[in-house]
Amino acid sequence: MTGIHRTPEKNLMVFTGRAHRALAASIAEELDTSLVPTQAYAFANSEIYVRFDESVRGCDAFVIQSHAAPVNEWIMEHLIMVDALKRASAKRITVVLPFYGYARQDKKHRGREPISARLMADLFKTAGADRLMAVDLHTAQIQGFFDGPVDHLMALPILADYVKEKYAGEDLAVVSPDAGRIKVAEYWSNRLGGVPLAFIHKTRDITRPNQSVAKRVVGEVAGRMCVLVDDMIDSGGTITQAADALMADGAKGVVVAATHAIFSHPAVQRLRDSVATEVIVTDTLPLSEEARALDKVTELSIAPLVARAIREVFEDGSVTSMFDGQA
Amino acid sequence: MTGIHRTPEKNLMVFTGRAHRALAASIAEELDTSLVPTQAYAFANSEIYVRFDESVRGCDAFVIQSHAAPVNEWIMEHLIMVDALKRASAKRITVVLPFYGYARQDKKHRGREPISARLMADLFKTAGADRLMAVDLHTAQIQGFFDGPVDHLMALPILADYVKEKYAGEDLAVVSPDAGRIKVAEYWSNRLGGVPLAFIHKTRDITRPNQSVAKRVVGEVAGRMCVLVDDMIDSGGTITQAADALMADGAKGVVVAATHAIFSHPAVQRLRDSVATEVIVTDTLPLSEEARALDKVTELSIAPLVARAIREVFEDGSVTSMFDGQA
Amino acid sequence: MTGIHRTPEKNLMVFTGRAHRALAASIAEELDTSLVPTQAYAFANSEIYVRFDESVRGCDAFVIQSHAAPVNEWIMEHLIMVDALKRASAKRITVVLPFYGYARQDKKHRGREPISARLMADLFKTAGADRLMAVDLHTAQIQGFFDGPVDHLMALPILADYVKEKYAGEDLAVVSPDAGRIKVAEYWSNRLGGVPLAFIHKTRDITRPNQSVAKRVVGEVAGRMCVLVDDMIDSGGTITQAADALMADGAKGVVVAATHAIFSHPAVQRLRDSVATEVIVTDTLPLSEEARALDKVTELSIAPLVARAIREVFEDGSVTSMFDGQA
Amino acid sequence: MTGIHRTPEKNLMVFTGRAHRALAASIAEELDTSLVPTQAYAFANSEIYVRFDESVRGCDAFVIQSHAAPVNEWIMEHLIMVDALKRASAKRITVVLPFYGYARQDKKHRGREPISARLMADLFKTAGADRLMAVDLHTAQIQGFFDGPVDHLMALPILADYVKEKYAGEDLAVVSPDAGRIKVAEYWSNRLGGVPLAFIHKTRDITRPNQSVAKRVVGEVAGRMCVLVDDMIDSGGTITQAADALMADGAKGVVVAATHAIFSHPAVQRLRDSVATEVIVTDTLPLSEEARALDKVTELSIAPLVARAIREVFEDGSVTSMFDGQA
Amino acid sequence: MTGIHRTPEKNLMVFTGRAHRALAASIAEELDTSLVPTQAYAFANSEIYVRFDESVRGCDAFVIQSHAAPVNEWIMEHLIMVDALKRASAKRITVVLPFYGYARQDKKHRGREPISARLMADLFKTAGADRLMAVDLHTAQIQGFFDGPVDHLMALPILADYVKEKYAGEDLAVVSPDAGRIKVAEYWSNRLGGVPLAFIHKTRDITRPNQSVAKRVVGEVAGRMCVLVDDMIDSGGTITQAADALMADGAKGVVVAATHAIFSHPAVQRLRDSVATEVIVTDTLPLSEEARALDKVTELSIAPLVARAIREVFEDGSVTSMFDGQA
Amino acid sequence: MTGIHRTPEKNLMVFTGRAHRALAASIAEELDTSLVPTQAYAFANSEIYVRFDESVRGCDAFVIQSHAAPVNEWIMEHLIMVDALKRASAKRITVVLPFYGYARQDKKHRGREPISARLMADLFKTAGADRLMAVDLHTAQIQGFFDGPVDHLMALPILADYVKEKYAGEDLAVVSPDAGRIKVAEYWSNRLGGVPLAFIHKTRDITRPNQSVAKRVVGEVAGRMCVLVDDMIDSGGTITQAADALMADGAKGVVVAATHAIFSHPAVQRLRDSVATEVIVTDTLPLSEEARALDKVTELSIAPLVARAIREVFEDGSVTSMFDGQA
Repeated sequence: MTGIHRTPEKNLMVFTGRAHRALAASIAEELDTSLVPTQAYAFANSEIYVRFDESVRGCDAFVIQSHAAPVNEWIMEHLIMVDALKRASAKRITVVLPFYGYARQDKKHRGREPISARLMADLFKTAGADRLMAVDLHTAQIQGFFDGPVDHLMALPILADYVKEKYAGEDLAVVSPDAGRIKVAEYWSNRLGGVPLAFIHKTRDITRPNQSVAKRVVGEVAGRMCVLVDDMIDSGGTITQAADALMADGAKGVVVAATHAIFSHPAVQRLRDSVATEVIVTDTLPLSEEARALDKVTELSIAPLVARAIREVFEDGSVTSMFDGQA
Repeated sequence: MTGIHRTPEKNLMVFTGRAHRALAASIAEELDTSLVPTQAYAFANSEIYVRFDESVRGCDAFVIQSHAAPVNEWIMEHLIMVDALKRASAKRITVVLPFYGYARQDKKHRGREPISARLMADLFKTAGADRLMAVDLHTAQIQGFFDGPVDHLMALPILADYVKEKYAGEDLAVVSPDAGRIKVAEYWSNRLGGVPLAFIHKTRDITRPNQSVAKRVVGEVAGRMCVLVDDMIDSGGTITQAADALMADGAKGVVVAATHAIFSHPAVQRLRDSVATEVIVTDTLPLSEEARALDKVTELSIAPLVARAIREVFEDGSVTSMFDGQA
Repeated sequence: MTGIHRTPEKNLMVFTGRAHRALAASIAEELDTSLVPTQAYAFANSEIYVRFDESVRGCDAFVIQSHAAPVNEWIMEHLIMVDALKRASAKRITVVLPFYGYARQDKKHRGREPISARLMADLFKTAGADRLMAVDLHTAQIQGFFDGPVDHLMALPILADYVKEKYAGEDLAVVSPDAGRIKVAEYWSNRLGGVPLAFIHKTRDITRPNQSVAKRVVGEVAGRMCVLVDDMIDSGGTITQAADALMADGAKGVVVAATHAIFSHPAVQRLRDSVATEVIVTDTLPLSEEARALDKVTELSIAPLVARAIREVFEDGSVTSMFDGQA
Repeated sequence: MTGIHRTPEKNLMVFTGRAHRALAASIAEELDTSLVPTQAYAFANSEIYVRFDESVRGCDAFVIQSHAAPVNEWIMEHLIMVDALKRASAKRITVVLPFYGYARQDKKHRGREPISARLMADLFKTAGADRLMAVDLHTAQIQGFFDGPVDHLMALPILADYVKEKYAGEDLAVVSPDAGRIKVAEYWSNRLGGVPLAFIHKTRDITRPNQSVAKRVVGEVAGRMCVLVDDMIDSGGTITQAADALMADGAKGVVVAATHAIFSHPAVQRLRDSVATEVIVTDTLPLSEEARALDKVTELSIAPLVARAIREVFEDGSVTSMFDGQA
Repeated sequence: MTGIHRTPEKNLMVFTGRAHRALAASIAEELDTSLVPTQAYAFANSEIYVRFDESVRGCDAFVIQSHAAPVNEWIMEHLIMVDALKRASAKRITVVLPFYGYARQDKKHRGREPISARLMADLFKTAGADRLMAVDLHTAQIQGFFDGPVDHLMALPILADYVKEKYAGEDLAVVSPDAGRIKVAEYWSNRLGGVPLAFIHKTRDITRPNQSVAKRVVGEVAGRMCVLVDDMIDSGGTITQAADALMADGAKGVVVAATHAIFSHPAVQRLRDSVATEVIVTDTLPLSEEARALDKVTELSIAPLVARAIREVFEDGSVTSMFDGQA
Repeated sequence: MTGIHRTPEKNLMVFTGRAHRALAASIAEELDTSLVPTQAYAFANSEIYVRFDESVRGCDAFVIQSHAAPVNEWIMEHLIMVDALKRASAKRITVVLPFYGYARQDKKHRGREPISARLMADLFKTAGADRLMAVDLHTAQIQGFFDGPVDHLMALPILADYVKEKYAGEDLAVVSPDAGRIKVAEYWSNRLGGVPLAFIHKTRDITRPNQSVAKRVVGEVAGRMCVLVDDMIDSGGTITQAADALMADGAKGVVVAATHAIFSHPAVQRLRDSVATEVIVTDTLPLSEEARALDKVTELSIAPLVARAIREVFEDGSVTSMFDGQA
């Protein structure tokens, strides 16, 4: 038959923008490779310029960018990198989002609002993304916003195993700061070997609607070391008030665990002043110096998890199996 | 300037398939029009045939079909109607879904599942739908699955106002059968003038994970007439067990209110045997004769609401304003 | 160069829904593999659930479903399977349609009809299909309805070779039941070594339009064993009347051959009562027990043909060459 | 409400390229308007330039071009006009194709062929066409190739009514030159009041396959004036041989009727030499001087039909009703 | 005919984000309307929230946002507004870009760069934009990046007429700071009544390539008041060096005219120190206080031009005619 | 794991239409392969037919067609070939355009014009092109018209190296016939080792606008052998007048170098009569016999360059590196 025959080769390349280079570097290191040398900077008028220093033709590209603040800056850089990869003939482009920006705007809370989480999915598709990989999306429905495969990773095993080991001798309770997130707390409870669950009913006093909001603890927490779990800590108000409520209910102590350490102002101050004795987070987002200086903050790395998922994707393995069929 | 000038006219036309003709007829009647005469039937091998008996060129088409069982039959008929409208030059096609099929498959609960709720949105887009109108979607995120405008209607005012009037003298409590749906119960509480809230914590005994499931009532219900609220009643197990738990906790009585009366087998039998004394639903889905024969079932019509929304859409009014800015 | 280099592997996986598992199992067996374990069932309200029990990441997926009755049920299951494969990162998805539902609605016979055969092609594209493979499409133009490659297989060699061997000593004639399908009869005639052709002019008496329909045999059939050929047998009326006409014209006997045995009611009864002595079909559609009980029905397997085509597609061979350049 | 309110106006504008200006001018005249002044010419290297001399913003554009030879030249001009209209903000663009180029390549006759008729539909869609209007498509399935509404007009009433009047006193027979087109002949027969049908079985001697092709007349034509009907006359071989066969079978005379007068070389010479005494065609394609000089050629205008259809489309009337529900 | 008939109304609504509210307010005022009340603000983590306070259903929306610094912030806000309009059922969305961000990245200057100007066009399309309106795009080819109509406005008449009047008595020369932009200078020359042209050959000494860059004036400028024209002034280096070169060549004086006053640091300082005596710009971008304080800066409003173009688009008039057929 | 595992193979296949077979054959030869046997011809009515004589399933297809006159004929053939490849299951389709038709219509020079260069990009995308490869596009922005990767090759090294060797002993100057193309001349100057630059200011006398056009030489050319460079020579007027101007300014001689030899009438005659002593072009377009007969025309082959780029694309190498990072 006419033609030139070859055995193809596939090549995994890892890229990152400037939002959180340390995480991307760790992921690359876990994969025994290095980040593709990339120029990325802003012009005088704040437009972003990107260029790759090596050929990317035919590569299986994983483009890591965590949507830290300034969110819009880093999302746009992320989109521009994808465009450059597409035009430079990358074979497949996986957008890796340790933290997915605008995930909380996943529905119209009121009429005439955008659904920005869907918009982001569409923007990445348009720029050239073939696939997404994300860690602990705010709601699982966001997977359905992207027209293509989404690998949804869970930081829970990392966080829970740390707690399990460190607080091995304690009587633990897992507490959700919000009735809507009890399901996640259940996963925690299971992972910790079946410890009791509780949650804070924060919206309002359940027996007196339309009163000012109260924080009522549901479940037995007295005398227990409470593990307060959430997907993200933004300005820290919800979580620190929940910790107060737990102590008021007789908890022995409170540790906080969350995947995404957004830590918008005044989160660091609130956490410093809080009754919580430890705040366990992952490095999906970069910590400020101020946060890093806080002794009670423990940062666990998500890099091995993301690296393993990237390897499974590259080698046609199974990501689902990394989470016992849950993802 | 060259050309022929005219003042355009717009024409609202209402269509329906065979899933729930009575509802569509009521909606048309509320609009002071009639359903467009349409042939729809199945061939010997079960393929569906559809044809409109009138010109639909340039019309503003509203195609009503509720995804009752057999769900796939009626979804396919719905899609085929949209295709026929598109090819017959309808100007704009709004797919009206009193009940949106596959809404519960709105995420991958486990790996390698479909996201069928997104798929349905895409199928309607492909067939030619410009817009969707739906009643009480299982999760609000489904709005984000469709690439275009979605009008999301709420049956709550209809159901709540009925309860408010009928049970005017009672000490009421609003109860959610599930911790995840407390937000809806709060809307109810507000609409009923601030009555107390409660909910059933159904997953498992909160203090003893991994035990068999128990139904614990959270909130004060003793001596109260409880309004148990949900978006849909499928086979009726959850809701009837919740009613039992309420009575066990000292409730004076239980009435059930839900938008979508799916009533799959053995829902009717369960409801008949239940301690609940009234089951209030809307007609988003057709009731079986058996259900209709049940004295305790009260069916309120959604037709005026849908008709009003269609009129607002047709006349460029506001649907959001129908729900105080919430939709 | 930066990156991790590998030689890729490709993996053929065969899937099926519930419409006709026996055929899919045969195809898998012909390929020396097995069907991917898959959960597929209906919930209480008839919504379909699908999940694959194994990782499908990176596979070359062939999803077999024949659109038997209930057609809409099995088409929807087919679409949902494709969606699940897409979201689970299958590399390429080929939809295999031994029988393509709605193929007869391939044009608007009258104004304001759908073109459902095009709609089906678009629905599969939207769900995630990259390619189609079909057997004996009702009209060849349907290939043009899909925006991508279509492999069109022909059952004729299988059917004709069976006839050639079984009726080796007979004076044969090939008969088309319809003037519009003479071309297919010609292929038959060639395959059988040049036997005479005839056809039934069924629309109306050619010399007296607007009269009641008559069945006139065109061509010499007297004393011959007639092979009546068509693409499908639905309720069986056309073909059995054609057989009567042939006998009335002096045929020695009639055998019927068709690719798709839809056999809608009352096809089995009509065939049982017919003068035709043998009805040769393939297994593109599942036969009912009743049909299977009919001695005169001979079912030939399409599985080796489909399996070979799948192998050619997987291995970048030629499907066209399987049919001497005709497909 | 904020904003500026107006009653909109709609404006029908008719455009044409250079393929067949006379037809477009007639259509515009029938509509009581004139063609929009347009520059269209080729540069030295044969690239085509197009520009409209008037604002087309917001208009309902009908762009007429018949795909006469050189087909590719006129199709490209057609596409470029549509692009210019889209970019100049026409509100809606209807591509009017009195003759649809490449309609005969509507399927893969053999493997590795294009399906050019589908490609043309896609090219027009891409350029910006919202709708198509075509006359007598080679196969009705082509309507399904376009992703949007297609108005399919039939020239038969024009041709048949002419024949009915001119040959009022004759014993007529309608003859199809090909077994595959008998359905069209039946429409003719009905329109002429129920005259007998016949057709030419041209492929090969029906009783002796693989022999050289013979032209056998099926049906009674002896002593009758035969009306030989087809959708197009390309180089004229088929139709003139059919006429010979009819005379050989004792026909009293032959007149030919066809919608599209392609008349590729040597059609004019063949028709001149033919036994057919009249060749009735429409003006969907421009006639050469040579063809026009042939006394036996009668050209009927399609312009009133197309104009009426354009008016119905513009005014949201019914095109289907122009053909008794058939289109 | 079935249905409800109405005469439609169309409604022009003008929206803006926060990048340059003053300009949008002026445009609305010119149109005798007001901006639609809109909430737009950033959350703690810098994600942007947008909501319209009025119904926008069915409106003809013009969404004005100038891509000032921080560019990515305002582009994202722009996109989110378009998404919200699309989902709230605006009938048509025109994105108005007084300054189009990333316009200078309109090609790959080197391999593996993005083409960000195309990406922006695609992002707006994806968000829901039907049309674009822009002022003085960096290169005219950018119009071709958007898949839909683009109205391209020119500020030249505004700037040139001001110069013509103010410097009526002077011997003028029009100077381009760059050989690649002489065409624009020619338009200026024509508008000013045919004054001489010159340009700066800035790349390098034309006779000695590879030497350090020199600024050579081509054309006669001695004794003339030079009008140095460009599309934008970013950090001001090019334009102020050009002014120096002109003075060195004997110019009587230099005034600078440019459409887009980006004025990135240190533009204001450079302009203050420059030999140019007047810097004429438009308000397509907001001027800083510092720039506004510079006496030599004259800001002309683009608002009447944009308002007139919006009105033409809304009323199906002609934008081309505003520029003598050039746009 | 279930399935059949294989190591994939990739296969490069080279195709061409009829526009310039000699070039395609040279490219194939450079690649040590041959052109895939292909039938391509026109039917009587000028519709084009294409079919490949070999299986192309799974191949990496490069489809070469240069858009020579008749441009529309060859573009349509090119599109049809791509459609046939797509439907025959080619794995990847790269459209190779030695000369890209309609490249000069890359913007609206005036209102209501098409942007045909963008349209062409979209047509190829629609037909099935995954990627483009082009030589010396008229403007680099055209790369942004295609939604996918574009490899942009430059003929300059080939042309410049020839000049460098042949005119080694001469005092050279590089001259651009147009101020807008000085940048290209600079590349030439660099490649030739830093020879002086000049250009023709052709629009009008720079000091006297609105006068008749004059050709003024800017830069020192007296006594030098001038290399007049451009991207294309169409009818030859611009380039021959530029040569005259150079001689008038004292040039020692003129040689012309251009990538694309369109040579529309009367280019050959003009070149024959011109003062230029050598006209160096590449074979991106086929030369007529008349042009070939002109002694002063030197044709250099682009084939090795295109072949090398194809090989890099096929083997995931770097095209950018072929041009020192410039492409």
